[in-house]
Amino acid sequence: MSSDKRYDMAGLSATTRLDPWLEQYAQRTRGLSSSAVRALFAVASRPEVVSLAGGMPFVSALPMDAIAETTARLIRERGNVALQYGSGQGDPALREQILEVLAPVGVESHPDDIIVTAGSQMALDLVVRVFCDPGDVVLVEAPTYITALSVFSSYQCEVIHVPMDEHGLEPHALRDTITRVRAQGKRVKLVYSIPSFQNPGGVTQPPQRRREILEVVTSENVLLLEDDPYGLLSFDGTVPRAIRADDSEAVIYLGTFSKTIAAGLRVGWAVAPHGVREKLVLANETAMLCPSNLTQMIITEYLSTSPWLDQVKVFRELYRERRDALIESLAMYMPAGTTWTVPTGGFYSWIDLPPGVDATAMLPRAVAARVAYVPGTGFFADGQGAHSLRLSYCYPEPDRIVEGVRRLGQVVSAEADMAELFGTTDALSSHRPPIAPTSDMA
Amino acid sequence: MSSDKRYDMAGLSATTRLDPWLEQYAQRTRGLSSSAVRALFAVASRPEVVSLAGGMPFVSALPMDAIAETTARLIRERGNVALQYGSGQGDPALREQILEVLAPVGVESHPDDIIVTAGSQMALDLVVRVFCDPGDVVLVEAPTYITALSVFSSYQCEVIHVPMDEHGLEPHALRDTITRVRAQGKRVKLVYSIPSFQNPGGVTQPPQRRREILEVVTSENVLLLEDDPYGLLSFDGTVPRAIRADDSEAVIYLGTFSKTIAAGLRVGWAVAPHGVREKLVLANETAMLCPSNLTQMIITEYLSTSPWLDQVKVFRELYRERRDALIESLAMYMPAGTTWTVPTGGFYSWIDLPPGVDATAMLPRAVAARVAYVPGTGFFADGQGAHSLRLSYCYPEPDRIVEGVRRLGQVVSAEADMAELFGTTDALSSHRPPIAPTSDMA
Repeated sequence: MSSDKRYDMAGLSATTRLDPWLEQYAQRTRGLSSSAVRALFAVASRPEVVSLAGGMPFVSALPMDAIAETTARLIRERGNVALQYGSGQGDPALREQILEVLAPVGVESHPDDIIVTAGSQMALDLVVRVFCDPGDVVLVEAPTYITALSVFSSYQCEVIHVPMDEHGLEPHALRDTITRVRAQGKRVKLVYSIPSFQNPGGVTQPPQRRREILEVVTSENVLLLEDDPYGLLSFDGTVPRAIRADDSEAVIYLGTFSKTIAAGLRVGWAVAPHGVREKLVLANETAMLCPSNLTQMIITEYLSTSPWLDQVKVFRELYRERRDALIESLAMYMPAGTTWTVPTGGFYSWIDLPPGVDATAMLPRAVAARVAYVPGTGFFADGQGAHSLRLSYCYPEPDRIVEGVRRLGQVVSAEADMAELFGTTDALSSHRPPIAPTSDMA
Repeated sequence: MSSDKRYDMAGLSATTRLDPWLEQYAQRTRGLSSSAVRALFAVASRPEVVSLAGGMPFVSALPMDAIAETTARLIRERGNVALQYGSGQGDPALREQILEVLAPVGVESHPDDIIVTAGSQMALDLVVRVFCDPGDVVLVEAPTYITALSVFSSYQCEVIHVPMDEHGLEPHALRDTITRVRAQGKRVKLVYSIPSFQNPGGVTQPPQRRREILEVVTSENVLLLEDDPYGLLSFDGTVPRAIRADDSEAVIYLGTFSKTIAAGLRVGWAVAPHGVREKLVLANETAMLCPSNLTQMIITEYLSTSPWLDQVKVFRELYRERRDALIESLAMYMPAGTTWTVPTGGFYSWIDLPPGVDATAMLPRAVAARVAYVPGTGFFADGQGAHSLRLSYCYPEPDRIVEGVRRLGQVVSAEADMAELFGTTDALSSHRPPIAPTSDMA
């Protein structure tokens, strides 16, 4: 993310100006706060820092000349459509093509049950907008996607984490949690899950696990929100079958072109049961009238004129190589007591630190050593995750990943030594600010 | 708007399928409903119908070859940025340039106090998200922009209309309404106004009126949300000075490139007091991570490499010619008892029908006569507007506008004759469905 110039007005720094509207904000803004991590990430975006923090896809691998040519042609030939307002549900031609993109994950649908949104983040926001009143409960994996937590918080949902094991979300824990929450008189509105190459856990639900989870949500009559940004980025080429493929009424499926084509186009989609889809379209129109016709048409043209699955294969190979660099260097540089997940696709590995080492307290030291990560607490709504962190291998080149892990290994080793001496590194920084969820792109 | 193919599943039409999640929706969705007008607009989009309904800019007048070339070059040369995630506040280079675009309306600001959004609709949504709890009061003009009403409704605000005269929002009525609402123990969170070439009223606040309105909101300590999509499209070239130009703390200003460059890029912005802007950025990140880098960069390139103000002048001339065609044909074809506003910029004229003629009841007959408009009730939250309608002259060529008004004149004349015979045309169609606010693009 770009860091901005700050303009100093009347000698006051921008951040110390008083806010005359402070008493006027809606209650939902209480969950909105700029975090200490955000400030650190401004430092972490310097080129000398190896960032293993952000989830930025490696778009430089795209065929830029072909995309440039395609885009120029469609503006010249169909600019009167590309530059005009479009449908609040999304371009019908793109919705037809999304069916093809869904084929590898086994989802069969109809263009009428698809809504195109400004990235799948927007689809997530609209789903929560349509379903959740303040106080409604959303069940999520432990840990889960940071900016999903921001969405749930901004709609004043109560977020409850359900444990994962090496096969992802645990079905028995899921059912127990639903039962327990309902016994408290609360409404469970959604189960939010990332079944494939989970962010940030790096784990994937096997087919049997998916069947069990589907059985729980259907028998308990809870809507499953299946977020699948990484499904096609499987390192062995075996794309996991989506849960939505086996039930079209119990599951809303979210997909995106951000990881397979380009994040900068902001095009994602939801596949939803029909009645839900109607509500989502109305909510989309209210929120932004319609997604960009131009960026939708670029994707339509790209999908129909280029070997897009070959390009996905290029990304798979590229990310697998980076995953390998990460895992090999973790084994080489991390001190005893550190463990990590080995992802079979996607962008992330989840790291548990040696006893007593606090990932948030350690972050400033890591950034000083020129390596960045996201501390584990950001992926929880309830303060868990203090001794864990997420590493991303999607963006830096493999040799930079190795160098970053080498630096991190030194910092973790030093922290582990301190923790052994003093009990925990957390106690060494008692006044650090709380970590609020922040954006996932830094 | 494109009409979609409908897929008929198992012999049931899509709209009659039962919705198993009907009991699960959030309370805020009660304001969301597909309207009868929406169905009519599907018919109205046929080429034989002259649509005076939609607010689509005439993008065909854009220099398509230049935009195509610019876009291709930036993808080739800076594709790694254009196709990547960007800042949740918007591209810093674009925010610098927005200062230049703001110069004609007299707004001086800092790039740090600007947030770029996916169209100014999204900025409007974020402002309401940040300020309004359910039950909070928003004061709006009578009539006001349809999709603003959808936003207020979706955040469960109470909307109260304040009268306008030929100079726009009435300051005394505004102050009286604030006093009255507060006496009822309610919180007035926002005054929403479109001071220039108002949608749908077609009226513009003169400078003195703006000063009076600003005096009311500052003395009453209410935030003014100034929506200014049409400000540069003044037919005599005199761009009205924005209210925000005279107070940077009391006013949030919304701008957009949808009418001066291209709606299909979905790029708008808010200029907000600093504390508010911080909240808006966090809300923007939660809702969609960031606006599209590509579409922002297209605008940045366009602004810096082409004579964009000359293009705005082209649009002004084009829309003035269409306004003239509308006003002249209204004088020629409308029956006695019909009145209309004569806009000095923008896209719309507001029509009051002869006594007893109901604009909603008349719409099917108008569409059968191959002309479409938006009935007045859509622009009110409280059922006003039954005997009014909005005509847009932005999209059809002048001769089509004349033909459309000729057709409409016949329908209105016939309705006026009926009303004279039977009292009101409203009573003739007692079972028509209520008109819900719908999107403004149709």
